[in-house]
Amino acid sequence: MPVSHRLGIIGLGLIGGSLALALRRARPELRILGVDVDTGALKRALAERAIDASATPDSAPLAECEVVVLAQPAAALLESILPTAARMTPGAVLTDVCGSKEAICARAAGQDRVLFVGAHPMAGTEFRGFAAASPALFAGATVAVCPPVGAREHGERAVTAVKDLWVAAGAGKLLDIDPAEHDGAVTFASHLPYLAAAMVVESLSKVADLAPLARELAAGGFRDTTRLAGDGTVGGAAALNRHVPGAARDLAERLRALADELTQSPEQTLERLGRLADTRRRMRLPPLPHK
Amino acid sequence: MPVSHRLGIIGLGLIGGSLALALRRARPELRILGVDVDTGALKRALAERAIDASATPDSAPLAECEVVVLAQPAAALLESILPTAARMTPGAVLTDVCGSKEAICARAAGQDRVLFVGAHPMAGTEFRGFAAASPALFAGATVAVCPPVGAREHGERAVTAVKDLWVAAGAGKLLDIDPAEHDGAVTFASHLPYLAAAMVVESLSKVADLAPLARELAAGGFRDTTRLAGDGTVGGAAALNRHVPGAARDLAERLRALADELTQSPEQTLERLGRLADTRRRMRLPPLPHK
Repeated sequence: MPVSHRLGIIGLGLIGGSLALALRRARPELRILGVDVDTGALKRALAERAIDASATPDSAPLAECEVVVLAQPAAALLESILPTAARMTPGAVLTDVCGSKEAICARAAGQDRVLFVGAHPMAGTEFRGFAAASPALFAGATVAVCPPVGAREHGERAVTAVKDLWVAAGAGKLLDIDPAEHDGAVTFASHLPYLAAAMVVESLSKVADLAPLARELAAGGFRDTTRLAGDGTVGGAAALNRHVPGAARDLAERLRALADELTQSPEQTLERLGRLADTRRRMRLPPLPHK
Repeated sequence: MPVSHRLGIIGLGLIGGSLALALRRARPELRILGVDVDTGALKRALAERAIDASATPDSAPLAECEVVVLAQPAAALLESILPTAARMTPGAVLTDVCGSKEAICARAAGQDRVLFVGAHPMAGTEFRGFAAASPALFAGATVAVCPPVGAREHGERAVTAVKDLWVAAGAGKLLDIDPAEHDGAVTFASHLPYLAAAMVVESLSKVADLAPLARELAAGGFRDTTRLAGDGTVGGAAALNRHVPGAARDLAERLRALADELTQSPEQTLERLGRLADTRRRMRLPPLPHK
Protein backbone atom coordinates (compact mmCIF):
# COMPACT_ATOMS: atom_id res chain seq x y z
CA MET A 1 0.00 0.00 0.00
CA PRO A 2 1.42 3.41 -0.91
CA VAL A 3 1.04 6.37 1.42
CA SER A 4 -2.65 6.80 2.20
CA HIS A 5 -4.94 9.03 0.20
CA ARG A 6 -6.34 10.73 3.25
CA LEU A 7 -4.32 11.20 6.41
CA GLY A 8 -5.31 12.53 9.81
CA ILE A 9 -2.76 14.05 12.17
CA ILE A 10 -3.93 14.61 15.73
CA GLY A 11 -1.70 17.15 17.45
CA LEU A 12 -0.08 19.85 15.30
CA GLY A 13 2.86 20.63 17.57
CA LEU A 14 6.53 20.34 16.68
CA ILE A 15 6.31 16.69 15.57
CA GLY A 16 2.79 16.58 14.06
CA GLY A 17 3.25 19.97 12.42
CA SER A 18 6.63 19.01 10.96
CA LEU A 19 5.15 15.74 9.65
CA ALA A 20 2.35 17.67 7.92
CA LEU A 21 4.83 20.13 6.35
CA ALA A 22 7.18 17.35 5.23
CA LEU A 23 4.38 15.29 3.66
CA ARG A 24 2.87 18.35 1.99
CA ARG A 25 6.19 18.87 0.25
CA ALA A 26 6.86 15.20 -0.60
CA ARG A 27 3.30 14.12 -1.45
CA PRO A 28 1.32 17.14 -2.64
CA GLU A 29 -1.61 14.90 -3.67
CA LEU A 30 -2.14 13.65 -0.10
CA ARG A 31 -5.18 15.12 1.70
CA ILE A 32 -4.19 15.97 5.27
CA LEU A 33 -6.72 16.54 8.04
CA GLY A 34 -5.18 18.45 10.95
CA VAL A 35 -6.67 17.97 14.40
CA ASP A 36 -5.76 19.98 17.47
CA VAL A 37 -7.35 21.37 20.64
CA ASP A 38 -5.63 24.69 19.86
CA THR A 39 -7.58 26.53 17.16
CA GLY A 40 -4.70 28.97 16.76
CA ALA A 41 -2.41 26.10 15.70
CA LEU A 42 -5.08 24.90 13.24
CA LYS A 43 -5.33 28.38 11.71
CA ARG A 44 -1.58 28.68 11.31
CA ALA A 45 -1.31 25.20 9.80
CA LEU A 46 -4.09 26.03 7.31
CA ALA A 47 -2.49 29.38 6.46
CA GLU A 48 0.82 27.64 5.74
CA ARG A 49 -1.06 24.98 3.72
CA ALA A 50 0.41 22.28 5.94
CA ILE A 51 -3.08 20.79 6.14
CA ASP A 52 -6.09 20.74 3.81
CA ALA A 53 -8.78 20.66 6.48
CA SER A 54 -8.89 21.31 10.20
CA ALA A 55 -10.97 20.08 13.11
CA THR A 56 -10.99 19.94 16.87
CA PRO A 57 -10.72 16.43 18.36
CA ASP A 58 -14.43 16.06 19.19
CA SER A 59 -15.64 16.90 15.70
CA ALA A 60 -12.87 15.44 13.51
CA PRO A 61 -14.18 13.14 10.73
CA LEU A 62 -11.74 10.36 11.61
CA ALA A 63 -13.82 7.72 9.79
CA GLU A 64 -12.74 9.33 6.52
CA CYS A 65 -9.04 8.76 7.17
CA GLU A 66 -7.18 5.67 6.01
CA VAL A 67 -4.32 6.48 8.35
CA VAL A 68 -4.39 8.52 11.58
CA VAL A 69 -1.21 9.66 13.34
CA LEU A 70 -1.38 10.45 17.07
CA ALA A 71 1.09 13.26 17.77
CA GLN A 72 -0.10 14.76 21.05
CA PRO A 73 1.99 15.04 24.23
CA ALA A 74 2.63 11.55 25.65
CA ALA A 75 0.01 11.39 28.40
CA ALA A 76 -2.79 12.74 26.18
CA LEU A 77 -1.63 10.48 23.35
CA LEU A 78 -1.91 7.37 25.53
CA GLU A 79 -5.42 8.27 26.67
CA SER A 80 -6.63 9.00 23.14
CA ILE A 81 -5.70 5.63 21.58
CA LEU A 82 -8.89 3.69 22.34
CA PRO A 83 -11.36 6.59 21.81
CA THR A 84 -9.69 7.42 18.48
CA ALA A 85 -9.70 3.80 17.30
CA ALA A 86 -13.40 3.57 18.16
CA ARG A 87 -14.19 6.42 15.75
CA MET A 88 -12.13 5.12 12.82
CA THR A 89 -13.22 2.81 10.00
CA PRO A 90 -12.57 -0.86 10.88
CA GLY A 91 -9.31 -2.03 9.30
CA ALA A 92 -7.86 1.49 9.00
CA VAL A 93 -4.35 2.22 10.27
CA LEU A 94 -3.59 4.06 13.52
CA THR A 95 -0.03 5.03 14.41
CA ASP A 96 1.75 7.39 16.81
CA VAL A 97 5.01 9.26 17.46
CA CYS A 98 5.49 8.75 21.20
CA GLY A 99 9.03 8.32 22.54
CA SER A 100 7.94 5.36 24.72
CA LYS A 101 6.47 2.31 23.04
CA GLU A 102 5.63 -0.43 25.56
CA ALA A 103 2.75 1.36 27.31
CA ILE A 104 1.43 2.73 24.01
CA CYS A 105 1.45 -0.56 22.08
CA ALA A 106 -0.01 -2.44 25.08
CA ARG A 107 -2.91 0.02 25.24
CA ALA A 108 -3.52 -0.25 21.50
CA ALA A 109 -3.55 -4.05 21.75
CA GLY A 110 -6.70 -3.66 23.87
CA GLN A 111 -8.84 -3.14 20.76
CA ASP A 112 -9.23 -5.05 17.49
CA ARG A 113 -11.01 -2.46 15.34
CA VAL A 114 -7.96 -0.86 13.71
CA LEU A 115 -4.40 -1.86 12.92
CA PHE A 116 -2.02 -0.06 15.28
CA VAL A 117 1.66 0.38 14.43
CA GLY A 118 3.68 2.22 17.08
CA ALA A 119 6.42 4.47 15.69
CA HIS A 120 8.98 6.86 17.11
CA PRO A 121 10.85 9.37 14.96
CA MET A 122 14.17 10.17 16.68
CA ALA A 123 14.17 13.92 16.11
CA GLY A 124 13.35 17.00 18.13
CA THR A 125 14.41 20.46 19.17
CA GLU A 126 14.13 22.52 22.32
CA PHE A 127 11.30 24.51 20.76
CA ARG A 128 7.71 23.42 20.61
CA GLY A 129 4.41 24.01 18.92
CA PHE A 130 3.51 24.44 15.26
CA ALA A 131 5.55 27.67 15.23
CA ALA A 132 8.69 25.54 15.60
CA ALA A 133 7.64 22.92 13.02
CA SER A 134 9.86 22.41 9.98
CA PRO A 135 9.49 20.25 6.86
CA ALA A 136 13.14 19.21 7.34
CA LEU A 137 12.87 18.05 10.97
CA PHE A 138 12.98 14.35 10.03
CA ALA A 139 15.56 14.61 7.25
CA GLY A 140 17.87 11.64 7.71
CA ALA A 141 16.33 10.70 11.07
CA THR A 142 16.00 7.16 12.36
CA VAL A 143 12.39 6.08 12.92
CA ALA A 144 11.66 3.11 15.17
CA VAL A 145 8.68 1.02 13.99
CA CYS A 146 7.03 -1.62 16.22
CA PRO A 147 5.11 -4.77 15.19
CA PRO A 148 1.38 -4.25 14.46
CA VAL A 149 -1.20 -4.86 17.20
CA GLY A 150 -5.00 -4.59 17.34
CA ALA A 151 -6.95 -5.88 14.32
CA ARG A 152 -5.72 -9.38 13.43
CA GLU A 153 -5.32 -9.18 9.66
CA HIS A 154 -3.25 -7.16 7.20
CA GLY A 155 -0.66 -6.21 9.82
CA GLU A 156 2.11 -6.06 7.22
CA ARG A 157 0.06 -3.71 5.07
CA ALA A 158 -0.20 -1.35 8.05
CA VAL A 159 3.52 -1.51 8.74
CA THR A 160 4.23 -0.74 5.09
CA ALA A 161 1.87 2.25 5.15
CA VAL A 162 3.53 3.70 8.25
CA LYS A 163 7.04 3.16 6.91
CA ASP A 164 6.04 4.72 3.61
CA LEU A 165 4.81 7.79 5.50
CA TRP A 166 8.12 8.26 7.29
CA VAL A 167 10.26 7.65 4.23
CA ALA A 168 8.22 10.33 2.46
CA ALA A 169 8.78 12.64 5.45
CA GLY A 170 12.54 12.25 5.05
CA ALA A 171 13.52 9.41 7.39
CA GLY A 172 17.04 8.13 6.71
CA LYS A 173 16.55 4.80 8.44
CA LEU A 174 13.66 2.62 9.57
CA LEU A 175 14.31 0.32 12.50
CA ASP A 176 11.97 -2.64 13.18
CA ILE A 177 11.97 -3.02 16.93
CA ASP A 178 10.16 -4.67 19.80
CA PRO A 179 8.51 -2.11 22.14
CA ALA A 180 10.31 -3.34 25.28
CA GLU A 181 13.68 -3.36 23.53
CA HIS A 182 12.97 0.15 22.22
CA ASP A 183 12.15 1.48 25.67
CA GLY A 184 15.24 -0.11 27.22
CA ALA A 185 17.53 1.50 24.66
CA VAL A 186 15.79 4.87 24.53
CA THR A 187 16.21 5.10 28.29
CA PHE A 188 19.92 5.69 27.66
CA ALA A 189 19.68 7.33 24.26
CA SER A 190 17.18 9.98 25.30
CA HIS A 191 15.40 9.80 28.63
CA LEU A 192 18.34 9.71 31.04
CA PRO A 193 20.26 12.48 29.23
CA TYR A 194 17.07 14.54 29.29
CA LEU A 195 16.39 14.00 33.00
CA ALA A 196 20.02 14.74 33.89
CA ALA A 197 19.90 17.96 31.88
CA ALA A 198 16.63 18.97 33.53
CA MET A 199 18.11 18.41 36.98
CA VAL A 200 21.21 20.47 36.09
CA VAL A 201 18.88 23.33 35.12
CA GLU A 202 16.95 22.82 38.37
CA SER A 203 20.19 22.88 40.38
CA LEU A 204 21.22 26.09 38.66
CA SER A 205 17.84 27.70 39.26
CA LYS A 206 18.35 27.11 43.02
CA VAL A 207 21.47 29.26 43.09
CA ALA A 208 19.87 32.29 41.50
CA ASP A 209 22.80 34.60 42.17
CA LEU A 210 25.15 32.35 40.20
CA ALA A 211 22.81 31.77 37.27
CA PRO A 212 23.62 34.91 35.22
CA LEU A 213 27.34 34.30 35.63
CA ALA A 214 27.01 30.61 34.75
CA ARG A 215 25.22 31.62 31.58
CA GLU A 216 27.94 34.13 30.77
CA LEU A 217 30.51 31.40 31.19
CA ALA A 218 28.44 28.93 29.21
CA ALA A 219 30.59 27.12 26.69
CA GLY A 220 29.10 24.85 24.07
CA GLY A 221 28.69 22.07 26.59
CA PHE A 222 26.25 23.98 28.75
CA ARG A 223 24.18 25.02 25.76
CA ASP A 224 24.10 21.42 24.53
CA THR A 225 23.10 20.03 27.90
CA THR A 226 20.48 22.53 28.87
CA ARG A 227 19.04 22.49 25.35
CA LEU A 228 17.85 18.97 26.17
CA ALA A 229 16.14 20.27 29.27
CA GLY A 230 14.05 22.55 27.05
CA ASP A 231 12.68 19.58 25.10
CA GLY A 232 9.62 19.12 27.28
CA THR A 233 8.08 16.49 24.99
CA VAL A 234 10.71 13.98 26.07
CA GLY A 235 9.51 14.29 29.66
CA GLY A 236 6.12 12.82 28.84
CA ALA A 237 7.65 9.83 27.09
CA ALA A 238 10.09 9.33 29.96
CA ALA A 239 7.16 9.27 32.39
CA LEU A 240 5.58 6.40 30.40
CA ASN A 241 8.83 4.40 30.24
CA ARG A 242 8.96 1.74 32.97
CA HIS A 243 12.76 1.42 32.58
CA VAL A 244 13.36 5.06 33.51
CA PRO A 245 12.96 5.21 37.32
CA GLY A 246 15.44 2.37 37.89
CA ALA A 247 17.92 3.80 35.42
CA ALA A 248 17.61 7.27 36.99
CA ARG A 249 18.25 5.81 40.46
CA ASP A 250 21.30 4.01 39.08
CA LEU A 251 22.54 7.25 37.49
CA ALA A 252 21.99 9.09 40.79
CA GLU A 253 24.01 6.45 42.62
CA ARG A 254 26.84 6.74 40.09
CA LEU A 255 26.91 10.51 40.51
CA ARG A 256 26.94 10.25 44.29
CA ALA A 257 29.77 7.71 44.18
CA LEU A 258 31.67 9.93 41.75
CA ALA A 259 31.32 12.88 44.14
CA ASP A 260 32.77 10.75 46.95
CA GLU A 261 35.62 9.56 44.74
CA LEU A 262 36.41 13.14 43.69
CA THR A 263 36.82 14.00 47.37
CA GLN A 264 38.75 10.89 48.41
CA SER A 265 40.86 9.85 45.42
CA PRO A 266 40.78 12.47 42.69
CA GLU A 267 43.57 10.84 40.63
CA GLN A 268 41.78 7.51 40.40
CA THR A 269 38.59 9.36 39.48
CA LEU A 270 40.36 11.20 36.69
CA GLU A 271 41.61 7.91 35.27
CA ARG A 272 38.08 6.57 35.30
CA LEU A 273 36.74 9.69 33.58
CA GLY A 274 39.52 9.44 31.00
CA ARG A 275 38.50 5.87 30.20
CA LEU A 276 34.89 7.00 29.81
CA ALA A 277 35.99 9.74 27.42
CA ASP A 278 37.73 7.04 25.38
CA THR A 279 34.56 4.93 25.48
CA ARG A 280 32.58 7.88 24.20
CA ARG A 281 35.01 8.49 21.36
CA ARG A 282 34.85 4.81 20.39
CA MET A 283 31.09 5.19 19.98
CA ARG A 284 31.81 7.02 16.74
CA LEU A 285 28.42 8.63 16.62
CA PRO A 286 27.29 10.27 13.41
CA PRO A 287 28.18 13.95 13.11
CA LEU A 288 25.85 16.56 14.53
CA PRO A 289 23.42 18.03 12.04
CA HIS A 290 23.79 21.72 11.26
CA LYS A 291 21.74 23.82 13.60
CA MET B 1 51.76 46.55 27.04
CA PRO B 2 50.97 44.92 23.73
CA VAL B 3 51.15 41.18 23.27
CA SER B 4 54.62 39.98 24.29
CA HIS B 5 57.48 39.65 21.87
CA ARG B 6 58.29 36.11 22.98
CA LEU B 7 55.66 33.71 24.26
CA GLY B 8 56.01 30.25 25.76
CA ILE B 9 53.12 27.76 25.63
CA ILE B 10 53.53 24.68 27.85
CA GLY B 11 51.23 21.90 26.63
CA LEU B 12 50.40 21.76 22.92
CA GLY B 13 47.13 19.88 23.20
CA LEU B 14 43.74 21.06 22.00
CA ILE B 15 43.84 24.35 23.93
CA GLY B 16 47.57 25.18 23.82
CA GLY B 17 47.83 24.08 20.19
CA SER B 18 44.81 26.11 19.19
CA LEU B 19 46.20 29.15 21.00
CA ALA B 20 49.49 28.81 19.10
CA LEU B 21 47.69 28.48 15.75
CA ALA B 22 45.39 31.42 16.48
CA LEU B 23 48.25 33.70 17.56
CA ARG B 24 50.40 32.66 14.60
CA ARG B 25 47.61 33.86 12.33
CA ALA B 26 46.78 37.05 14.25
CA ARG B 27 50.31 38.08 15.30
CA PRO B 28 52.79 36.65 12.79
CA GLU B 29 55.63 38.66 14.36
CA LEU B 30 55.25 36.91 17.72
CA ARG B 31 57.95 34.33 18.53
CA ILE B 32 56.27 31.25 20.04
CA LEU B 33 58.16 28.63 22.02
CA GLY B 34 56.19 25.36 22.19
CA VAL B 35 56.82 23.06 25.16
CA ASP B 36 55.45 19.54 25.53
CA VAL B 37 56.41 16.16 26.97
CA ASP B 38 55.23 14.62 23.68
CA THR B 39 57.93 15.10 21.04
CA GLY B 40 55.44 13.99 18.37
CA ALA B 41 53.21 16.95 19.21
CA LEU B 42 56.22 19.28 19.07
CA LYS B 43 57.16 17.97 15.61
CA ARG B 44 53.63 18.41 14.28
CA ALA B 45 53.38 21.92 15.74
CA LEU B 46 56.71 22.88 14.13
CA ALA B 47 55.67 21.33 10.81
CA GLU B 48 52.46 23.38 10.83
CA ARG B 49 54.46 26.47 11.85
CA ALA B 50 52.26 26.87 14.91
CA ILE B 51 55.46 27.41 16.92
CA ASP B 52 58.89 28.83 16.08
CA ALA B 53 60.91 26.70 18.49
CA SER B 54 60.23 23.56 20.50
CA ALA B 55 61.49 22.14 23.78
CA THR B 56 60.64 19.52 26.35
CA PRO B 57 59.70 20.90 29.78
CA ASP B 58 63.05 20.19 31.43
CA SER B 59 65.12 22.01 28.81
CA ALA B 60 62.77 24.85 27.80
CA PRO B 61 64.45 28.31 27.91
CA LEU B 62 61.62 29.82 29.94
CA ALA B 63 63.77 32.74 31.11
CA GLU B 64 63.64 34.08 27.55
CA CYS B 65 59.82 34.37 27.57
CA GLU B 66 58.00 37.53 28.62
CA VAL B 67 54.77 35.55 28.94
CA VAL B 68 54.31 31.82 29.60
CA VAL B 69 50.94 30.08 29.22
CA LEU B 70 50.35 26.84 31.15
CA ALA B 71 48.07 24.64 29.04
CA GLN B 72 48.64 21.13 30.37
CA PRO B 73 45.93 18.83 31.79
CA ALA B 74 44.64 20.27 35.07
CA ALA B 75 46.55 18.14 37.59
CA ALA B 76 49.89 18.56 35.78
CA LEU B 77 49.19 22.26 35.30
CA LEU B 78 48.65 22.79 39.05
CA GLU B 79 51.90 21.01 39.94
CA SER B 80 53.92 22.95 37.35
CA ILE B 81 53.05 26.47 38.54
CA LEU B 82 55.78 26.94 41.15
CA PRO B 83 58.58 25.09 39.27
CA THR B 84 57.77 27.08 36.11
CA ALA B 85 57.69 30.42 37.95
CA ALA B 86 61.07 29.59 39.52
CA ARG B 87 62.67 29.31 36.06
CA MET B 88 61.19 32.51 34.62
CA THR B 89 62.65 36.01 34.66
CA PRO B 90 61.47 37.96 37.74
CA GLY B 91 58.55 40.22 36.82
CA ALA B 92 57.55 38.18 33.76
CA VAL B 93 53.93 37.10 33.28
CA LEU B 94 52.65 33.58 33.91
CA THR B 95 49.10 32.61 33.00
CA ASP B 96 47.07 29.42 32.48
CA VAL B 97 43.95 27.99 30.82
CA CYS B 98 42.60 25.69 33.54
CA GLY B 99 38.82 25.36 33.95
CA SER B 100 39.10 25.71 37.74
CA LYS B 101 40.60 28.88 39.17
CA GLU B 102 40.58 28.86 42.99
CA ALA B 103 43.16 26.09 43.47
CA ILE B 104 45.31 27.41 40.61
CA CYS B 105 45.39 31.05 41.73
CA ALA B 106 45.96 30.02 45.37
CA ARG B 107 48.98 27.94 44.36
CA ALA B 108 50.37 30.79 42.22
CA ALA B 109 49.96 33.21 45.14
CA GLY B 110 52.57 31.11 46.94
CA GLN B 111 55.41 32.79 45.02
CA ASP B 112 56.33 36.41 44.35
CA ARG B 113 58.80 36.01 41.46
CA VAL B 114 56.37 36.38 38.55
CA LEU B 115 53.00 37.99 37.97
CA PHE B 116 50.34 35.28 37.69
CA VAL B 117 47.00 35.95 35.98
CA GLY B 118 44.64 32.98 35.94
CA ALA B 119 42.50 32.70 32.81
CA HIS B 120 39.94 30.26 31.45
CA PRO B 121 38.85 30.27 27.80
CA MET B 122 35.32 28.79 27.62
CA ALA B 123 35.85 26.64 24.54
CA GLY B 124 36.51 22.98 23.81
CA THR B 125 35.55 19.96 21.79
CA GLU B 126 35.30 16.25 22.45
CA PHE B 127 38.59 15.72 20.63
CA ARG B 128 42.02 16.22 22.11
CA GLY B 129 45.65 16.72 21.29
CA PHE B 130 47.39 18.98 18.79
CA ALA B 131 45.74 16.96 16.00
CA ALA B 132 42.39 18.47 17.07
CA ALA B 133 43.72 22.03 17.49
CA SER B 134 42.21 24.80 15.38
CA PRO B 135 43.07 28.49 14.95
CA ALA B 136 39.30 29.20 15.20
CA LEU B 137 38.65 27.37 18.48
CA PHE B 138 38.40 30.60 20.49
CA ALA B 139 36.53 32.67 17.90
CA GLY B 140 33.89 34.59 19.84
CA ALA B 141 34.55 32.67 23.06
CA THR B 142 34.24 34.15 26.53
CA VAL B 143 37.49 34.15 28.49
CA ALA B 144 37.40 34.49 32.27
CA VAL B 145 40.35 36.49 33.66
CA CYS B 146 41.20 36.54 37.39
CA PRO B 147 42.97 39.25 39.41
CA PRO B 148 46.80 39.08 39.40
CA VAL B 149 48.62 37.27 42.21
CA GLY B 150 52.31 36.63 42.98
CA ALA B 151 54.72 39.48 42.35
CA ARG B 152 53.41 42.65 43.99
CA GLU B 153 53.89 45.26 41.29
CA HIS B 154 52.66 45.85 37.77
CA GLY B 155 49.64 43.56 38.21
CA GLU B 156 47.56 45.62 35.79
CA ARG B 157 50.27 45.34 33.15
CA ALA B 158 50.09 41.54 33.46
CA VAL B 159 46.28 41.51 33.18
CA THR B 160 46.49 43.68 30.08
CA ALA B 161 49.07 41.36 28.50
CA VAL B 162 46.90 38.28 29.12
CA LYS B 163 43.75 39.96 27.83
CA ASP B 164 45.61 41.16 24.77
CA LEU B 165 46.68 37.58 24.08
CA TRP B 166 43.11 36.28 24.17
CA VAL B 167 41.67 39.12 22.11
CA ALA B 168 44.31 38.34 19.48
CA ALA B 169 43.31 34.66 19.67
CA GLY B 170 39.71 35.58 18.84
CA ALA B 171 37.96 35.93 22.20
CA GLY B 172 34.59 37.64 21.90
CA LYS B 173 34.34 38.66 25.55
CA LEU B 174 36.67 39.06 28.51
CA LEU B 175 35.16 38.60 31.93
CA ASP B 176 36.98 39.90 35.03
CA ILE B 177 36.11 37.47 37.76
CA ASP B 178 37.06 36.35 41.25
CA PRO B 179 38.39 32.75 41.31
CA ALA B 180 35.82 31.48 43.84
CA GLU B 181 32.96 33.09 41.96
CA HIS B 182 34.28 31.57 38.74
CA ASP B 183 34.43 28.08 40.21
CA GLY B 184 30.93 28.34 41.69
CA ALA B 185 29.43 29.32 38.35
CA VAL B 186 31.48 26.94 36.22
CA THR B 187 30.28 24.10 38.44
CA PHE B 188 26.87 24.52 36.79
CA ALA B 189 28.01 25.81 33.41
CA SER B 190 30.45 23.01 32.73
CA HIS B 191 31.44 20.56 35.45
CA LEU B 192 28.04 19.16 36.46
CA PRO B 193 26.85 18.74 32.84
CA TYR B 194 30.13 16.98 32.10
CA LEU B 195 29.91 14.63 35.07
CA ALA B 196 26.26 13.81 34.34
CA ALA B 197 27.13 13.04 30.71
CA ALA B 198 30.05 10.85 31.78
CA MET B 199 27.80 8.89 34.12
CA VAL B 200 25.18 8.41 31.38
CA VAL B 201 27.92 6.94 29.19
CA GLU B 202 29.03 4.75 32.10
CA SER B 203 25.44 3.56 32.66
CA LEU B 204 25.13 2.71 28.99
CA SER B 205 28.44 0.84 28.97
CA LYS B 206 27.07 -1.42 31.75
CA VAL B 207 24.21 -2.64 29.54
CA ALA B 208 26.42 -3.71 26.67
CA ASP B 209 23.65 -5.51 24.80
CA LEU B 210 21.58 -2.32 24.62
CA ALA B 211 24.43 -0.04 23.65
CA PRO B 212 24.41 -0.62 19.86
CA LEU B 213 20.66 -0.14 19.75
CA ALA B 214 20.83 2.98 21.91
CA ARG B 215 23.37 4.42 19.50
CA GLU B 216 21.14 3.55 16.55
CA LEU B 217 18.29 5.36 18.25
CA ALA B 218 20.48 8.30 19.18
CA ALA B 219 18.79 11.55 18.31
CA GLY B 220 20.60 14.86 18.58
CA GLY B 221 20.14 14.91 22.32
CA PHE B 222 22.22 11.82 22.92
CA ARG B 223 24.98 13.06 20.66
CA ASP B 224 24.99 16.40 22.46
CA THR B 225 25.09 14.84 25.91
CA THR B 226 27.65 12.18 25.32
CA ARG B 227 29.83 14.61 23.36
CA LEU B 228 30.48 16.30 26.70
CA ALA B 229 31.58 12.99 28.17
CA GLY B 230 34.30 12.84 25.52
CA ASP B 231 35.78 16.16 26.68
CA GLY B 232 38.24 14.60 29.11
CA THR B 233 39.99 17.90 29.86
CA VAL B 234 36.96 19.09 31.81
CA GLY B 235 37.34 16.18 34.20
CA GLY B 236 40.68 17.45 35.48
CA ALA B 237 39.28 20.90 36.14
CA ALA B 238 36.23 19.41 37.84
CA ALA B 239 38.52 17.42 40.13
CA LEU B 240 40.22 20.67 41.26
CA ASN B 241 36.91 22.47 41.86
CA ARG B 242 35.92 22.35 45.53
CA HIS B 243 32.31 23.21 44.67
CA VAL B 244 31.86 20.09 42.53
CA PRO B 245 31.43 17.20 45.01
CA GLY B 246 28.63 18.97 46.88
CA ALA B 247 26.91 20.01 43.68
CA ALA B 248 27.21 16.48 42.28
CA ARG B 249 25.67 15.03 45.46
CA ASP B 250 22.84 17.55 45.19
CA LEU B 251 22.29 16.60 41.53
CA ALA B 252 22.27 12.91 42.49
CA GLU B 253 19.66 13.59 45.15
CA ARG B 254 17.51 15.49 42.66
CA LEU B 255 17.70 12.61 40.19
CA ARG B 256 16.81 10.06 42.85
CA ALA B 257 13.84 12.15 43.99
CA LEU B 258 12.75 12.56 40.37
CA ALA B 259 12.84 8.79 39.89
CA ASP B 260 10.61 8.34 42.95
CA GLU B 261 8.23 11.04 41.74
CA LEU B 262 8.02 9.44 38.30
CA THR B 263 6.89 6.23 39.99
CA GLN B 264 4.51 7.78 42.49
CA SER B 265 3.02 10.85 40.83
CA PRO B 266 3.93 11.04 37.14
CA GLU B 267 1.52 13.90 36.36
CA GLN B 268 3.01 16.16 39.03
CA THR B 269 6.48 15.26 37.78
CA LEU B 270 5.56 16.20 34.24
CA GLU B 271 4.35 19.59 35.42
CA ARG B 272 7.66 20.15 37.17
CA LEU B 273 9.63 19.12 34.08
CA GLY B 274 7.48 21.42 31.96
CA ARG B 275 8.30 24.35 34.23
CA LEU B 276 11.99 23.51 33.95
CA ALA B 277 11.71 23.46 30.16
CA ASP B 278 10.21 26.95 30.38
CA THR B 279 13.08 28.01 32.66
CA ARG B 280 15.56 26.72 30.13
CA ARG B 281 13.88 28.60 27.31
CA ARG B 282 13.89 31.80 29.37
CA MET B 283 17.67 31.49 29.67
CA ARG B 284 17.88 32.68 26.07
CA LEU B 285 21.35 31.33 25.58
CA PRO B 286 23.32 32.44 22.57
CA PRO B 287 22.90 30.24 19.50
CA LEU B 288 25.12 27.20 19.06
CA PRO B 289 28.20 27.78 16.93
CA HIS B 290 28.39 25.84 13.68
CA LYS B 291 29.99 22.47 14.20
